[in-house]
Amino acid sequence: MRRSAIALARQAARTVQPARTLRSSASPMALPRQTSAPTNTLTPVFKRFGSSLPPRSEAYAKATKEHVEHIKSLLSSPNGVMSTLDGSASADDLQPFNDDWMNKYHGKSQIVVKPKTTQEVSEILKYCNEQGLAVVPQGGNTGLVGGSNPVYDEIILNLSNMASIRSFDEVSGILTCDAGCILETVDNYLAEKGFIFPLDLGAKGSCQIGGNVATNAGGLRLLRYGSLHGTVLGLEVVLPDGTIYDSLGGLRKDNTGFDLKQLFIGSEGTIGIITGVSILTPKRPTAMNVAVFSLSSYEDVQKVYNETKAGLGEILSAFEFFDKQAYELVKRHMKEGGEAERKVFENEGEFYVLVETGGSNNDHDEEKLQNLLEKLMENELIQDGVLAQDQTQFHSLWKLRELIPESAGKAGSVYKYDLSVPVPKMYSLVEKMRERLGEAGLWKEEGGGRIREVVGYGHIGDGNLHINICADKYDDEIEKVIEPYVYEIVAEERGSISAEHGLGVMKAPYIGYSKSQTSIDMMKQVKKMFDPKGILNPYKYVVV
Amino acid sequence: MRRSAIALARQAARTVQPARTLRSSASPMALPRQTSAPTNTLTPVFKRFGSSLPPRSEAYAKATKEHVEHIKSLLSSPNGVMSTLDGSASADDLQPFNDDWMNKYHGKSQIVVKPKTTQEVSEILKYCNEQGLAVVPQGGNTGLVGGSNPVYDEIILNLSNMASIRSFDEVSGILTCDAGCILETVDNYLAEKGFIFPLDLGAKGSCQIGGNVATNAGGLRLLRYGSLHGTVLGLEVVLPDGTIYDSLGGLRKDNTGFDLKQLFIGSEGTIGIITGVSILTPKRPTAMNVAVFSLSSYEDVQKVYNETKAGLGEILSAFEFFDKQAYELVKRHMKEGGEAERKVFENEGEFYVLVETGGSNNDHDEEKLQNLLEKLMENELIQDGVLAQDQTQFHSLWKLRELIPESAGKAGSVYKYDLSVPVPKMYSLVEKMRERLGEAGLWKEEGGGRIREVVGYGHIGDGNLHINICADKYDDEIEKVIEPYVYEIVAEERGSISAEHGLGVMKAPYIGYSKSQTSIDMMKQVKKMFDPKGILNPYKYVVV
Repeated sequence: MRRSAIALARQAARTVQPARTLRSSASPMALPRQTSAPTNTLTPVFKRFGSSLPPRSEAYAKATKEHVEHIKSLLSSPNGVMSTLDGSASADDLQPFNDDWMNKYHGKSQIVVKPKTTQEVSEILKYCNEQGLAVVPQGGNTGLVGGSNPVYDEIILNLSNMASIRSFDEVSGILTCDAGCILETVDNYLAEKGFIFPLDLGAKGSCQIGGNVATNAGGLRLLRYGSLHGTVLGLEVVLPDGTIYDSLGGLRKDNTGFDLKQLFIGSEGTIGIITGVSILTPKRPTAMNVAVFSLSSYEDVQKVYNETKAGLGEILSAFEFFDKQAYELVKRHMKEGGEAERKVFENEGEFYVLVETGGSNNDHDEEKLQNLLEKLMENELIQDGVLAQDQTQFHSLWKLRELIPESAGKAGSVYKYDLSVPVPKMYSLVEKMRERLGEAGLWKEEGGGRIREVVGYGHIGDGNLHINICADKYDDEIEKVIEPYVYEIVAEERGSISAEHGLGVMKAPYIGYSKSQTSIDMMKQVKKMFDPKGILNPYKYVVV
Repeated sequence: MRRSAIALARQAARTVQPARTLRSSASPMALPRQTSAPTNTLTPVFKRFGSSLPPRSEAYAKATKEHVEHIKSLLSSPNGVMSTLDGSASADDLQPFNDDWMNKYHGKSQIVVKPKTTQEVSEILKYCNEQGLAVVPQGGNTGLVGGSNPVYDEIILNLSNMASIRSFDEVSGILTCDAGCILETVDNYLAEKGFIFPLDLGAKGSCQIGGNVATNAGGLRLLRYGSLHGTVLGLEVVLPDGTIYDSLGGLRKDNTGFDLKQLFIGSEGTIGIITGVSILTPKRPTAMNVAVFSLSSYEDVQKVYNETKAGLGEILSAFEFFDKQAYELVKRHMKEGGEAERKVFENEGEFYVLVETGGSNNDHDEEKLQNLLEKLMENELIQDGVLAQDQTQFHSLWKLRELIPESAGKAGSVYKYDLSVPVPKMYSLVEKMRERLGEAGLWKEEGGGRIREVVGYGHIGDGNLHINICADKYDDEIEKVIEPYVYEIVAEERGSISAEHGLGVMKAPYIGYSKSQTSIDMMKQVKKMFDPKGILNPYKYVVV
């Protein structure tokens, strides 16, 4: 019975006009190659914060040659320390560690330490704590909020030399590895064994597992595999006084006391340095599909999300949305990049959604996708749709979404916001922002305006909205119209001013827009409890 | 190509001899009805702990009639307080709140308070903290370790009167509800909307969401939906001094500071009283299937688990195992219960596994199960298998697993252990225990012995092992042979002495077997930070 019903529906799908596009798919598009790192620009928040940056605290000792000598004596190899104080390194040598990858945040550290073992990390921290030397933990240094490089002369403790996989159990899928392992390296290791790391990021070629956990990285697989608070099973952490907290291991369930490791997930290196991670890894999907639909309203985006969750259920692995303005930017960027114009959709829309599936049986997954498409068309929830037919088209369709940040960057100087708001309210923030800029007479078409475009996109499944505001150039007047307004409207919806990037140095002053004073006070107590001398990653996060 | 390959495989399945059983399934079995609450017995741990129970602390005030009057004045309704001190209740009235449901732990409280709002909880706690009155938070009082009823005369703060669903968003699936909501009530509410609560328990008809979160309940759906640390998105908690910590809301992603709510998940009411919960609920599977296989070794159990994860992937929702000894107990129990003996398996085994699937397309799920079964048979990993053909058989097959605790209870006085160990080591603990009892000459068949049976079963997917040791009767000599040996062998494997039940009063003295002194010291600091006067749930958990 069921089978023939499906066959009939499939038959119908072949005859309905818009379904033709769905089945035949877009012709392969050779889109411009995107760099894996996200496009970022100097935001006004940093500029304003820059002027109010607290001065270097006199509570911290100034590092000397003697400190360098002592730290060297704690390591198995003297090459583990690079310093301008003893002439073992030049300022140029230290620059990649002092600056962030966007060249937006600049530290002035004179010492980089690269320990090889947890014991070495412990001895270094114990010594720094005794001496009152401030320390910034550093993984792949791929963060977006200035959390992983020094603000002043903090000693940089870089985890790159701790990059071994410690164990992997193919029955439970539990992996234990050093904090300094590169995400992509670990995922490649798991791929060979048929497993997948439950986290994926644009920066995966550089970012480290320890940093991922320390920043509670979200990324592209969160909808499917959940947050690191659920998948991380244990941590090894060196506390500021050198104590080693060790909850590594292969346990999925353990109800013996407070789950302390949770505090370190997302703590951005302020209460301890993560040196090892145990994490539950799922089986790798053997089938992947992607489709992009055009829709007429944000109401329909939500309805399609609901139908998609019901229809694809367990195989849904991503549900992204972007607005017409974002799509137009991408098309223009592609055209300027020398691409021949291609008609992806017969019927373009006000909104677009990208749906990805990951499962263990491709026939089943394709059938589920077809059934969903037919239902969405019958209910007139989508105007058009394209389904990738091969690996090339799979990546081409993803690029319609992935190229948005780059395309916005080409369209002007971009004010970028990474916000978390309840799904039903998500798009209203983009509309409010457009209205506000209009009321201020800032739109280009209104004469004298300096705003070229406002685009909205993001992860519907995660309630994570990105707003990019493209202006002629950065401008204090524009900034004042946008901020703190954007944080205020997020706060009104009980949203988060940082969905996934963290606070770092950039958003530290704005935590009050997302957290109550009660929460902030509790956080300060936690910080003081773990790091009474405040040596770890100062001037950032929850500033005590 | 793929489709016809599947068709061929299906054809093959119909002709291979053992597959016949697989397809035709067991005949429906009318097994004895199981009570929804798990069977429990007095364990020796409690007896020993009973003798070393710390005396009532003089630090706490003794409740008076004046205290009762004042607490009444804080509530909107005077009926919210029941006390023997002012004659508003008898000792009998308070007994259901003083005793746990197993009648194993007995408190002597003279006051039960049932606030209706978070504000009332706040005012009660503020007052108790000022007055030095100890308080035990109580949800459904269904725990197994004496965590939810008083040890002495602590005031019982019962959440039953706070049982409203506050909001549900059908787009994101985010539910916000009062702590006192009954799990089953909430799940029924969600079922009507096509969603499912990501937690299921035997006690679901009585246990409350707040208690579930406070004890980090695991249950039957953990393999599929993960732990509450991943699914709980926000909490409303009243701290011991009456401060309300509120992180409720509809956000899946929020990286603005320490994730404080995590500390309350599994804190067993020792640092705050949970009054509200926001949780992410998944779409309810529309198709469910269950199969039971017989196997010849624990090695094969692990191999089948690995193949099942690969073959069923995203639709796998439970993977339970039990040994031959457990299966024989259940068969005997069924026979004694008047059931006609039925041959479930042509080929019985040394081990059994139960596999459950939950998906969105029954045809697909059945096909995946068939493909898996064929592969397992080809590789000779299973000896036999039964696949449920309808709802009745679905429940009958589940009962082969679910009846184990009850059947063990019928076989003698049971020493019960709930342990978490790495999957590869799981069953060796059962074998070690049998060996030890043998070396001590305690086996019944060895003459003069008093141990009738040792059975092992549990959640392979969660690494959660249950060992039940059936003895003629509770006996100090037996107890000394088992304990602390069982905790020692768990500790050797870096396991947990409590996979899901928590510490409560029962396991509080044994935390050292699962946690390092460093961890315990940190936990004590956390307790002191939140509850400096120690008024919340004293004598339990991490005793300061």
